[in-house]
Amino acid sequence: MREIKVGILGFGTVGSGTVKILQDNADAISARIGAEIVVSRVAVRDLTKPRDVSLHAPTLTTNPQDITDDPDIEIVAELIGGVEPARTLVERAIANGKNIVTANKEMVAKVGHDLRIAAQSSGKDFFMEASVAGGIPIIATLGESLAGNQVREIAGIVNGTTNYILTKMTQEGAAFEKVLSEAQSLGYAEAEPSSDVDGYDAQYKIAILASLAFGSRVNVEDVQVEGIRHISPRDIVVAKELGYRIKLIATAQGSPNGMRVRVNPTLLPLKHPLATVDGVFNGVFVRGDAVGDLTLIGRGAGSLPTGSAVVGDIIHCARNIVAGATGRVPYMASHDLPMLPAASSWSKFYARVRVLDRPKALAAIATIFGDHDVSIESVIQRAMPDEEAEIVWVTHEVREQDVHAALATIHALPVVRSVDTALRVME
Amino acid sequence: MREIKVGILGFGTVGSGTVKILQDNADAISARIGAEIVVSRVAVRDLTKPRDVSLHAPTLTTNPQDITDDPDIEIVAELIGGVEPARTLVERAIANGKNIVTANKEMVAKVGHDLRIAAQSSGKDFFMEASVAGGIPIIATLGESLAGNQVREIAGIVNGTTNYILTKMTQEGAAFEKVLSEAQSLGYAEAEPSSDVDGYDAQYKIAILASLAFGSRVNVEDVQVEGIRHISPRDIVVAKELGYRIKLIATAQGSPNGMRVRVNPTLLPLKHPLATVDGVFNGVFVRGDAVGDLTLIGRGAGSLPTGSAVVGDIIHCARNIVAGATGRVPYMASHDLPMLPAASSWSKFYARVRVLDRPKALAAIATIFGDHDVSIESVIQRAMPDEEAEIVWVTHEVREQDVHAALATIHALPVVRSVDTALRVME
Repeated sequence: MREIKVGILGFGTVGSGTVKILQDNADAISARIGAEIVVSRVAVRDLTKPRDVSLHAPTLTTNPQDITDDPDIEIVAELIGGVEPARTLVERAIANGKNIVTANKEMVAKVGHDLRIAAQSSGKDFFMEASVAGGIPIIATLGESLAGNQVREIAGIVNGTTNYILTKMTQEGAAFEKVLSEAQSLGYAEAEPSSDVDGYDAQYKIAILASLAFGSRVNVEDVQVEGIRHISPRDIVVAKELGYRIKLIATAQGSPNGMRVRVNPTLLPLKHPLATVDGVFNGVFVRGDAVGDLTLIGRGAGSLPTGSAVVGDIIHCARNIVAGATGRVPYMASHDLPMLPAASSWSKFYARVRVLDRPKALAAIATIFGDHDVSIESVIQRAMPDEEAEIVWVTHEVREQDVHAALATIHALPVVRSVDTALRVME
Repeated sequence: MREIKVGILGFGTVGSGTVKILQDNADAISARIGAEIVVSRVAVRDLTKPRDVSLHAPTLTTNPQDITDDPDIEIVAELIGGVEPARTLVERAIANGKNIVTANKEMVAKVGHDLRIAAQSSGKDFFMEASVAGGIPIIATLGESLAGNQVREIAGIVNGTTNYILTKMTQEGAAFEKVLSEAQSLGYAEAEPSSDVDGYDAQYKIAILASLAFGSRVNVEDVQVEGIRHISPRDIVVAKELGYRIKLIATAQGSPNGMRVRVNPTLLPLKHPLATVDGVFNGVFVRGDAVGDLTLIGRGAGSLPTGSAVVGDIIHCARNIVAGATGRVPYMASHDLPMLPAASSWSKFYARVRVLDRPKALAAIATIFGDHDVSIESVIQRAMPDEEAEIVWVTHEVREQDVHAALATIHALPVVRSVDTALRVME
């Protein structure tokens, strides 16, 4: 049986999962391709580090160019992460005629366009299923199964750490900081958690999905991002009472006029298929003009689930190699759709305001909302300790800038103690 | 730009959706392939029938051989349904070197093996995404994205009619017959509903999924099937109280020893990702050794959602044609795994028994369960009118044949009025 040699850059969580799957399911994978996958070289930083997965010693190298420059290697799996040195190595591998499989969301989001053009020019594959939502096949679904659709909207829970934290806060009523430190001790959150809890990880992922869904370049810095540090247990309780769950949602909406791509903590009605995606699970909702609503739910991280996506891409690429058909799917980001300003977008909003419990506070706030064309769907006022009251507003679909202008004016009212939170609400 | 000619057999719901998508999204689809899809011929039974989608008159023909035998047509989309004449036409098209796209669950389930072997022998594609679960890309996911996995288990809600009926029964407490006739008047159920409500439609679909997941032939007749006619509003209410929803679940479990493939109304705990898949939506849950748990939810029927799957397959095939790579995925049903007997399978069970309200009924039934090694997780006894009592049992994981033997003995007890229902319970 024909052999196809794979070189792997990086042997951390994803790299070891990838090698384990290729070893454990070797026979089935060979049959499914009609060729044998051989991991011929793995580039690591430290040859002596103990590892879960055993490889023949000569397979390991500390020199990544042993992979990018090896004429026998046909597929390079880049599993290092971060822009450099990954980008330079991938560029070099493409220049040397390799097909690329990558799990690197940051590299794909920031410089994927140029890399994909380069791969396309040399007639090679550039696959990146593992860069978004771990084992969930959202990239293949967008690029292949839904290729007959115009995608209108994507909404995703694409960061497991924040979903775990919000789920725990919902189940236990605990504060963000407490759950974060628990998550850190369990290994579900990094010691430096900003990339997750401030939404940057989700920002990369939704930039990638938007570029695929709308066939356009997306500048990561233009993706508005809001994290979950300001979500309080009180917000979660109030949202629950109203029939909602709070999730960190990455959304992309597209039309011929432009795109809106953003990451925000959002209230989802319990009926929404993402509302019950809990814990470290990820979920991606897609609305297409033909398929309608489609939701994919699965494990968004971890050695084997992410390795499953990498191995799926390696098999896809190997089948193309056997058929002489690498590069068979044209790279599509041919448009440069403008990013529409968030301020002009429409959404329902939830706002929680604390006031001195004076009879006129409700009327004063309602008047300001009215003056700003913010129409109200529901209001709940409740007495709180210290002669305060809490007023929770849910608006109809309104313009985002109108809500923010109204809340700024409301914040300045003497009867208002604080505007605790303002969050988007999804239908 | 290169043209790829498609011939369509059948111009009903799916055929017209397919043509509409190909027309509406023609520019995007051409760009995504690097070639233009031209629907050159559509075979219909009646040329004069008014249709939603307009085609140039010469495109229509009543002679399907104008398609199977046309040397310019490269892809034949079979959208007729049923085994004959579809099978004979597909065989003829394959013999003439065509690639096949089909939405025909019955044909694929019954004779798909031979057709796929024939397509493979001539190096052509045989795609069938639309044959299972409409717009949900479960077949591509199993065959491509999860190709690195050993699939352990599939569980699906793959019939929209029964899911609509069970959802309505759950929401409204109405009886099966009443909801069925409503569904018939709304067009969600056929005048002859047996194929849906007795589970045969689901039987075809799970046979197809099992054959793909386990790489084995599956004889449709060996798939045990149980419909939903015997589900009463009372079962639904009691299941709800216990924290479950009743769904018609098609399952397939595989191991090197064999497969279990079956269709049963099943109690799902609310936490299960399929428990909240309601109305006409379908959902498929897959457990793989690497990816873990993956769930896909979407529209399982309808002109555009099913058309989306057909067009996805046409695009997939057209990309292969452009790359000279049709037949690039080897056909895999190389095994002939035995079908393991249902009787020896293990599951939790729910049973609802009506008894004369005598103090000893509970003990007598419990003793019989115990004698048959059926251990009980929970029991609820309630007084009913006419001096009867209802006893609801949920078992631990037990052998199916033990439950059935116990229930037969219980049924013969003088204090037992009826064994109303016995259903499987999923974890």
